[in-house]
Amino acid sequence: MSSGSTAVDVSPVGALLRACRREPVDYTPVWFMRQAGRSLPEYRASRAGTRMLEACRDPALVCELTLQPVRRHGVDAAILFSDIMVPLAAAGIELDITPGVGPVVARPVRDRADVAAIRPLVASDVDFVAEAVRLVVRELGPVPLIGFAGAPFTLASYLIEGGPSREHARTKALMYGDPPLWHALLGRLAEITLEFLRVQVAAGASAVQLFDSWAGALSDVDYRRFVAPHSAAVLSGLAAQFPDVPRIHFGVGTAELLPAMAAAGATVMGVDWRTPLDVASARIGPSCAVQGNLDPAVLFAPWPVVETEVRRVLHEGSAAPGHVFNLGHGVLPETDPDVLTRVVDLVHETSARP
Amino acid sequence: MSSGSTAVDVSPVGALLRACRREPVDYTPVWFMRQAGRSLPEYRASRAGTRMLEACRDPALVCELTLQPVRRHGVDAAILFSDIMVPLAAAGIELDITPGVGPVVARPVRDRADVAAIRPLVASDVDFVAEAVRLVVRELGPVPLIGFAGAPFTLASYLIEGGPSREHARTKALMYGDPPLWHALLGRLAEITLEFLRVQVAAGASAVQLFDSWAGALSDVDYRRFVAPHSAAVLSGLAAQFPDVPRIHFGVGTAELLPAMAAAGATVMGVDWRTPLDVASARIGPSCAVQGNLDPAVLFAPWPVVETEVRRVLHEGSAAPGHVFNLGHGVLPETDPDVLTRVVDLVHETSARP
Repeated sequence: MSSGSTAVDVSPVGALLRACRREPVDYTPVWFMRQAGRSLPEYRASRAGTRMLEACRDPALVCELTLQPVRRHGVDAAILFSDIMVPLAAAGIELDITPGVGPVVARPVRDRADVAAIRPLVASDVDFVAEAVRLVVRELGPVPLIGFAGAPFTLASYLIEGGPSREHARTKALMYGDPPLWHALLGRLAEITLEFLRVQVAAGASAVQLFDSWAGALSDVDYRRFVAPHSAAVLSGLAAQFPDVPRIHFGVGTAELLPAMAAAGATVMGVDWRTPLDVASARIGPSCAVQGNLDPAVLFAPWPVVETEVRRVLHEGSAAPGHVFNLGHGVLPETDPDVLTRVVDLVHETSARP
Repeated sequence: MSSGSTAVDVSPVGALLRACRREPVDYTPVWFMRQAGRSLPEYRASRAGTRMLEACRDPALVCELTLQPVRRHGVDAAILFSDIMVPLAAAGIELDITPGVGPVVARPVRDRADVAAIRPLVASDVDFVAEAVRLVVRELGPVPLIGFAGAPFTLASYLIEGGPSREHARTKALMYGDPPLWHALLGRLAEITLEFLRVQVAAGASAVQLFDSWAGALSDVDYRRFVAPHSAAVLSGLAAQFPDVPRIHFGVGTAELLPAMAAAGATVMGVDWRTPLDVASARIGPSCAVQGNLDPAVLFAPWPVVETEVRRVLHEGSAAPGHVFNLGHGVLPETDPDVLTRVVDLVHETSARP
């Protein structure tokens, strides 16, 4: 009420980073995975005629697409418009993002020579990303930017399968069949991922999210043996250089993996809608905040249902030592953007601690 | 050793049903989801030129396809060759199974009139299934036949989406947006499913599996509210008429749902590869056997890895009050059938209790 109040930081910059750090907040911060995407008419207009990788390499366009949902919804964070395949393409791997399909890799990784041919990423390979981050951060003002990258397992699956896969059969065949080659591949991908995140943070990103979209295809024992060390290399490498930058770690279908994924070095564990946040937080332990986890399909329901579900997520999230409101997966393209805006307002109003 | 031994039933007929009933077994029984399928060259030869639904309606062909994996692998059970859409097609819903796509429904369910138009299934609609079951049972001798059906939620998803869906967005929109219509739809589907299973058991099936393939897309609270009552109607309806027939209940990605799915009336809970069987059994409780749960992708690994993983599953399964060895999902089409045969032998040898 009083302009002289200084006891608590109530500026938007604070909420996201403070929730990530398990510090007290004045309201629960909210952003949406894939908020910079096809649900927005202004996104579709800006992207028209531009292929995905081309768009990711255009700093001015990346800046515009990243800012659109912040302007429209008043979310508490921007997330860099990019694609998990960007650093691989920048490191010289021949691939494309095909509309309606996803990443398509020209020569899938099959053997030692293929792995040996994957070269490290150097910062200059992704100058366009650093430039985009600087542009975005300048425009955002106090709103924090979340950088992001795909995790080694998910990148490996695309490289080995040659594209999206539901079963990950070739990936697992390599994983089980040739563990030394597997670890060599994931080690290289971890280096690329770490460098890609370093570039984003050095250019001004305030937090990062490591997307291990497909990790949920693995059992806990396989995740710990074949994947966790490499995701940990990324997250601990970043922590060593930027200890204050929150590290969000997320995958879908990870009910059994939440403790292992958190232990890989997350400061915030992203949770899909299948596991209630209070259950997830109890499973993960008190040293990690949580992010999530409204079912993206709930946004197609009538508003009273959305409202009930948002309140439920906030209630369950309040049991965790820190809560960033989000969906349990990315915004679906057919989502009405006005509903997203209403959710932001509802989260802010409902969670306000005056 | 002695032909006069009568203390324990060692015939193949016993192992599957006894494991399902949590009775002592001489070895762990084994069968594979989708064992009657494209992994077998004899299947591909028999199916060549015949569309899926056409094949399902041909008792002689169904009998041949159902028996093939029993002959080849020596599994402890046959599972009726069919498709979860068969009873819906038999009840007059216009649909097809398109190769490479899956079920395609001509007029997706959208409103009250669409639901009202779904008529009950009567036994005479699926005379061809009863005939196929009788043929199979006669040929099988002592090996038990597992009947099967899709569960109401999974059937509803196909009907509402019009085909396979990863997000089930329309399905959930109807579920959240119009609960009375949702429950009317699932009630009708439960009646159809129950009648379809009754026909199979009356004709000679010794056990049933209720496939709720997509239930894992739901949170526990939504599963219990919107789905469990209808799956329970199917399972309890069958139990009322055929109390001694084991009821296997299965879905993928159901880590959070295992207790609720078991409580819907399963005597055996199928578990995917993400949850170890000892963990699953502890979560479900002592009144249910478990089935599973080798990752189907492990079958592409070198044999020593397969062997290690089979032994791990057997070890974890031994903690449950009953264990039917199976994969954690269906056999992948590219699987080498010789590996499946070796797995059957390994399971029998490793688990033998002399």
